Amino acid sequence: MLPDIEIAKGARLVDIREIAKKLRIPEEKLKLYGNHIAKVDHRYLKELNRKKGKLILVTAITPTPAGEGKTTTSIGLSMALNRIGKKSIVTLREPSLGPVFGVKGGAAGGGYSQVLPMEDINLHFTGDIHAVTTAHNLVSAVIDAHINHGNELGIDIRKIYWKRAIDMNDRALRQIVIALGGSANGYPREDGFLITAASEIMATLCLASDLADLKRRIGEIVVAQSEKKGLVRIKDLGIQGAVAALLKDAINPNLVQTIENTPAFVHGGPFANIAHGTNTLIATKMALGLADYVVTEAGFAADLGAQKFLDFVAPTGNLTIDAVVLVASIRALKYHGGVAKEDLSKENVEAVVKGMENLKVHVENLQKYGVPIVVALNRFESDTPAEIEAVLRESPVKCVINEAYAKGSEGAVELAQRVVETIETIPTNYKPLVPAELPIEEKIDIIAKQIYRAGKVIYTDTAKSKLSMLKKNGYGNYPVIIAKTQNSISDDPKKINAPKGYEFTVRDFQISAGAGFVVALAGEIMLMPGLPKVPAAVNIDIDENGEITGLF
Amino acid sequence: MLPDIEIAKGARLVDIREIAKKLRIPEEKLKLYGNHIAKVDHRYLKELNRKKGKLILVTAITPTPAGEGKTTTSIGLSMALNRIGKKSIVTLREPSLGPVFGVKGGAAGGGYSQVLPMEDINLHFTGDIHAVTTAHNLVSAVIDAHINHGNELGIDIRKIYWKRAIDMNDRALRQIVIALGGSANGYPREDGFLITAASEIMATLCLASDLADLKRRIGEIVVAQSEKKGLVRIKDLGIQGAVAALLKDAINPNLVQTIENTPAFVHGGPFANIAHGTNTLIATKMALGLADYVVTEAGFAADLGAQKFLDFVAPTGNLTIDAVVLVASIRALKYHGGVAKEDLSKENVEAVVKGMENLKVHVENLQKYGVPIVVALNRFESDTPAEIEAVLRESPVKCVINEAYAKGSEGAVELAQRVVETIETIPTNYKPLVPAELPIEEKIDIIAKQIYRAGKVIYTDTAKSKLSMLKKNGYGNYPVIIAKTQNSISDDPKKINAPKGYEFTVRDFQISAGAGFVVALAGEIMLMPGLPKVPAAVNIDIDENGEITGLF
Repeated sequence: MLPDIEIAKGARLVDIREIAKKLRIPEEKLKLYGNHIAKVDHRYLKELNRKKGKLILVTAITPTPAGEGKTTTSIGLSMALNRIGKKSIVTLREPSLGPVFGVKGGAAGGGYSQVLPMEDINLHFTGDIHAVTTAHNLVSAVIDAHINHGNELGIDIRKIYWKRAIDMNDRALRQIVIALGGSANGYPREDGFLITAASEIMATLCLASDLADLKRRIGEIVVAQSEKKGLVRIKDLGIQGAVAALLKDAINPNLVQTIENTPAFVHGGPFANIAHGTNTLIATKMALGLADYVVTEAGFAADLGAQKFLDFVAPTGNLTIDAVVLVASIRALKYHGGVAKEDLSKENVEAVVKGMENLKVHVENLQKYGVPIVVALNRFESDTPAEIEAVLRESPVKCVINEAYAKGSEGAVELAQRVVETIETIPTNYKPLVPAELPIEEKIDIIAKQIYRAGKVIYTDTAKSKLSMLKKNGYGNYPVIIAKTQNSISDDPKKINAPKGYEFTVRDFQISAGAGFVVALAGEIMLMPGLPKVPAAVNIDIDENGEITGLF
Repeated sequence: MLPDIEIAKGARLVDIREIAKKLRIPEEKLKLYGNHIAKVDHRYLKELNRKKGKLILVTAITPTPAGEGKTTTSIGLSMALNRIGKKSIVTLREPSLGPVFGVKGGAAGGGYSQVLPMEDINLHFTGDIHAVTTAHNLVSAVIDAHINHGNELGIDIRKIYWKRAIDMNDRALRQIVIALGGSANGYPREDGFLITAASEIMATLCLASDLADLKRRIGEIVVAQSEKKGLVRIKDLGIQGAVAALLKDAINPNLVQTIENTPAFVHGGPFANIAHGTNTLIATKMALGLADYVVTEAGFAADLGAQKFLDFVAPTGNLTIDAVVLVASIRALKYHGGVAKEDLSKENVEAVVKGMENLKVHVENLQKYGVPIVVALNRFESDTPAEIEAVLRESPVKCVINEAYAKGSEGAVELAQRVVETIETIPTNYKPLVPAELPIEEKIDIIAKQIYRAGKVIYTDTAKSKLSMLKKNGYGNYPVIIAKTQNSISDDPKKINAPKGYEFTVRDFQISAGAGFVVALAGEIMLMPGLPKVPAAVNIDIDENGEITGLF
């Protein structure tokens, strides 16, 4: 197969106004970014009062480090739904530049299942992530300026929770000391940079309902502790208006098209560990108001992305989930069955069967939410007939082979048919597993035991003391987002397949009061990736006509 | 008068396609960013083969810290040229976000002499500055990753010249220590952030002739010294293609309109001390191919911006300068006449006359380049008739009052007429003052003595040793850009008016091999501003409909 960027270049894009017209979005609601990208005024959401479409959540089993093709499946499924005559929109997260220059080289689907124009989506796009970075760092600059100019709020420079942000894989910025060089430069202190996807501004943007709500949420963000007056919030610095102004365009969903000219919203990109890992609620809700079927994707595996979507995102946005597609791959199943990474291309039916335990845990977990489930087996070239047969046989729910990567919508027609049939015949009984009103520890207990299959939950002393601080400040019953490894259902990345009965350790807490949740940290969460020895950047090039190569 | 943003909101913008049509730019050369901003494909420049327009350079006397209205004058003059029937385009630099949130609150002209839409131009615009920031920091991340992964190039971590960049006023990032926290985070070293306007990527973008030239120049940028192999360039890291790919859109000029619907290019924004201080050459050259008169602006006062334009930018771009407009204000003249800042609004004819020495030095300097000169006295409310009369009387060349700030083009008609008359009657004898082939020291000698009026040039030991390194590496006859204070003709910000015969000290050198010049540092140059106690950010707000207030 051709590299992704060559496939993308072979595609015939239609004018984005045509895409919008088919969705009946009035042209005056669009802000064009060239001929193939448009932002849709988020206020248009309030004007949409047709019957809402059906929401399909795409999630995955515990992946190998290479990923199992959730985005490709989401795009392929939406294209195939259109192919069988259903009006469908796919909603996705925006790719971060970090991975583009790091290992992956691009993140807008792949093969014949892409969103386009992929060069733009991967490089700057409509500037949303840069706007979030800038909004984030304005807060940082104002904090240090405030301290430097007399520190009226009494900010304790040992207890500043707000780091700086950059959309780059840059390990050298993980832990730094700033404000050196004398009194003109401020008070020296420890600091660090997050990658922008981990910024609370990103999470907040993705959960806000409109500009007024966004500004209010930004004001609530806790940035530090004061020496005397408790928590310091952005509203105490008086800059929630300026921060929101920087997001004036970023709040509007980005409309693009798939390689088969079906509509896609690509909007917002929060992490799925420290945050909730799905595109903006505004984009998903707008899509539900415009189409009969909306396919959306949750980051990482089902224990992270789907749990957060089902217990937190959907309730926040007042959404119902009509079906869940659980993506599996034979490579990942073999990995969970104990095969070493370098041997994943060799046939091993026994390992596939053993690794099905991981898939079964995710299916059982999802069933606890009352949602109909379809398993999509994402076909890779190395898969053998015997391995495929084993998966179809062992799957606890209907499993369909998906070949959207190699064949586009044609490769996902069966999946689309099966999803439609499921939605039409099995009414969803969706209900969150974690009741909203419970105290933080009880919420964690439910997630850790029922989803992660832990036997016991342990809190470090740091976690205990942070929790009591949170309770003191009124966050004791707040929604909980758990940050843990994506490489295992457990909190230990080395425990593959279906671990259970282990001790789950909560090491620390963070408050994301603007986004509206408390983060329970279970394990070392990498919020700033690094570049490999030979980064993808080395392969990226551009010629005198602006043709880009090396993105894939 | 109303605040700038309220005046801007009262303006009636026309579709940017209309502006382009009047300039005969084919619609397929445009990439729209909404209805009022478009990028023009930079390759269109090569198709323009009509007679080139006349180039008018706007510069200024040594200003007070508040600035004397160069941008307002440039915009007003171009609007007035159109008003009197001449086809004119104004080309300007893009505003940095730093000042927007710092002291000024915005930088797209002012009063009735603005470029619009001012909210967009001031906040993200078409993302060019973010693209430069990202391109810059990709280089930084790759340098530290290279060192971390074995350091094949033998980069000396004590001699890394490439800092990081951010488009924010953030003094806490001036001097930092990075890569702390153990071996996973790399080798700890000293570092710092520049504001993006000071990035060599910005200077390079502004001087490149096309994408191929940009990529080649980026490859030449020197980032560090190797322990064994001499200088390390971006091409040694192999990422010039990826860096150029990040600038794929940033290289295309941004077409907008003035408050009177005349065309404007706002493109690129390099500093005028550490770099050359003018908008992209591509934008200026495209404007010259589209209009009969092009008004462009050089940063800071004439000793900085104009000297660099006349000795370096114009030769680089093969441009001729047909007239120079020297902007003066009575406030600044009084300041040079010895009046304290808080008394600048009080009448003081004697101080005005005394301060005319500063204006006379700048006029004499400009005359050395053989260019026709018009002085524009930028009218402020506090100016008295006696003061104005003194300026008109004492001016060594024709002086015209400019009221574009308060009256738009109507207030600059006389200036426009005078400029046209000058161009039509006095043929330019423009020639650079500094011959291209001279060694660095001789170039500095000419600039310091003939422009800055120094008696003697002194080099510190650091400067001497850096100069000998530059010579060893083949940069001994390179163009020279002098970085010095903008608050004095001399290298001492406290020497107001017309200092002369002093000792001018070169403290250090930097090589900007991608931009194509050596920087001679004379004095402490601030490459990262800080925020004041009450930053402009506190006054900026946005309502639920996206209406922004507090930008001015």
